[in-house]
Amino acid sequence: MAGQNRVWRLSRRPKAEITPDVLSLEREPVPAPADGEVLVRVNYLSLDPTNRVWMSDIPQYMPPVGLGEVMRGLICGTVIESRAPGFSEGDVVGGLGGWADYLALPARGLNKLAPAATLSLLDTWAILSLVGPTAYFGLIDIGQPKSGETLVVTTAAGAVGSIAAQIGKLKGCYVVGLAGTDDKCAWLKEDLKLDGVINYKTEDVAQALRRACPKGIDIYFDNVGGDILDACLVLMNLKGRIVTCGLISTYNAEGARGGPKNYAAILMQRLRVQGFIVLDYLHRYPEAMAALVPWLMEGKLKYRLDVVDGLENAVTAVKRLYTGENKGKLVIAVAPPT
Amino acid sequence: MAGQNRVWRLSRRPKAEITPDVLSLEREPVPAPADGEVLVRVNYLSLDPTNRVWMSDIPQYMPPVGLGEVMRGLICGTVIESRAPGFSEGDVVGGLGGWADYLALPARGLNKLAPAATLSLLDTWAILSLVGPTAYFGLIDIGQPKSGETLVVTTAAGAVGSIAAQIGKLKGCYVVGLAGTDDKCAWLKEDLKLDGVINYKTEDVAQALRRACPKGIDIYFDNVGGDILDACLVLMNLKGRIVTCGLISTYNAEGARGGPKNYAAILMQRLRVQGFIVLDYLHRYPEAMAALVPWLMEGKLKYRLDVVDGLENAVTAVKRLYTGENKGKLVIAVAPPT
Repeated sequence: MAGQNRVWRLSRRPKAEITPDVLSLEREPVPAPADGEVLVRVNYLSLDPTNRVWMSDIPQYMPPVGLGEVMRGLICGTVIESRAPGFSEGDVVGGLGGWADYLALPARGLNKLAPAATLSLLDTWAILSLVGPTAYFGLIDIGQPKSGETLVVTTAAGAVGSIAAQIGKLKGCYVVGLAGTDDKCAWLKEDLKLDGVINYKTEDVAQALRRACPKGIDIYFDNVGGDILDACLVLMNLKGRIVTCGLISTYNAEGARGGPKNYAAILMQRLRVQGFIVLDYLHRYPEAMAALVPWLMEGKLKYRLDVVDGLENAVTAVKRLYTGENKGKLVIAVAPPT
Repeated sequence: MAGQNRVWRLSRRPKAEITPDVLSLEREPVPAPADGEVLVRVNYLSLDPTNRVWMSDIPQYMPPVGLGEVMRGLICGTVIESRAPGFSEGDVVGGLGGWADYLALPARGLNKLAPAATLSLLDTWAILSLVGPTAYFGLIDIGQPKSGETLVVTTAAGAVGSIAAQIGKLKGCYVVGLAGTDDKCAWLKEDLKLDGVINYKTEDVAQALRRACPKGIDIYFDNVGGDILDACLVLMNLKGRIVTCGLISTYNAEGARGGPKNYAAILMQRLRVQGFIVLDYLHRYPEAMAALVPWLMEGKLKYRLDVVDGLENAVTAVKRLYTGENKGKLVIAVAPPT
């Protein structure tokens, strides 16, 4: 297929914040799919905190994006040409792709998408591809919540955090959420019915946590690392669990920064600190779907999508993940299906 | 019973190293046992890295020793007067006691001791009370070693480390041990048959670990924390385990020090970092004994006792645990049974 394509390529590695010179939007011919590949028109692009990790040449869970390469991202798209058995023009697919209008992708890395129950296609893809399963496996498999336990969740108004917090409530936990604006805190308190909320930008987090968690912390669902991790460590109860889902407060840090000062709590309180990446759980996705889809249908899991129009806005949009400006799951509408 | 007793009492909390003014040796009357207590003549006193923790007013797994109180320690002793049912004069007992010639102790905290199989009473108490079970449960329960995996052990010539390293060998691991003298390294290599040894005082630990662990590290049995923990973190394999048994390099640090700089490896490599205290495993001691006693009998677990004569030498002896001077399990012979 001829025609023009827009592609965000990684120009240089960010030193701290993502600056405009880190990625450049190139105009290129639409690629031709090779054998085993499909050509995909990207409908939606997911922006996630881990994007910042992929831009950096640091040790991580998959190779970083190479300089000059298309920026990596989870996409939802429509097959417009197939050179792979089992895939046809018009199929809607999801998987790891890139920041572009059109992508030639190996079919083996793609899943066909269909709306789950009464959800829209966008919601199905945005919530059930990564965000929902991340919250589910992180909390259930690693956090192992028991009714009556205290769960603390950071970035609680974010995509993963808000679902983890609500699953905690569904499991009978006393749930305290941290977010960065009063508006987000109000949403957590009034709509998600969390037991406690903390605005980490205006409150003294250590004091606020002590007040909000009178029985200590049994599970800390950690999306941020840094100072808040330290504040939680001193409040962890015996045999507490720290679910290491993200360390977003450290991603923009230039060079190595000190780790948690209160690391000794791991020994003294016999904690289990465990990292995970949802990709490790692909084989157990049916289990997550069996729990999440009914909860979504019954309105027991609320979520917010933060949809930004236009591939050209991807770089300005992604930065909002690190400033706390976005609300809920951040998605670029590249070319929504009509 | 009348008579004179010598008792080490905590005078002040150490700021960094244990200085001579931290403990004072008092001469006092021998205490009278209350109802439910026994009067014990201390035969042996165990000195352990955790002693430094108990001296400090930091968050820990049991209350610190109070100022003016008898310094806490694991003892082996002989009952010379009983006011508790089930205990009689002449019984040999073990349990948490203190740094003294005579102690009046609640009987419910004591166990009667008998030599295990062909071991001496001293060896039975010194190796099987805490040290052996600590190594066993830490490595087996938390480390979950599989044949062919690489295990790194710090303080590998020490009481717990040497047993953990040998259990690793018995489980088919490739075992690399760190110790602080060439003499200790030679013992690890020649007598314990470890696959790799590193003198952490004379070698560049990060480089030496990379060389000694060509397949990365699957299990790190951490007795020290600090810089060596950081060096191990960057070498951990996917789904590796860090057994947090001790953090001795940090115990003498004044005030909070930074945690591991490479903490993000927990997320990127999906590590499990888990702290434990052997006291949590008391109910599973029979399992440890069933494994350890035959290994000891068959000569598959070697150990060294470092016996220092005289209660008056306890303070100078305990400091050797933090300088790397002692070899094997450190014990004070207070009044060995005749």
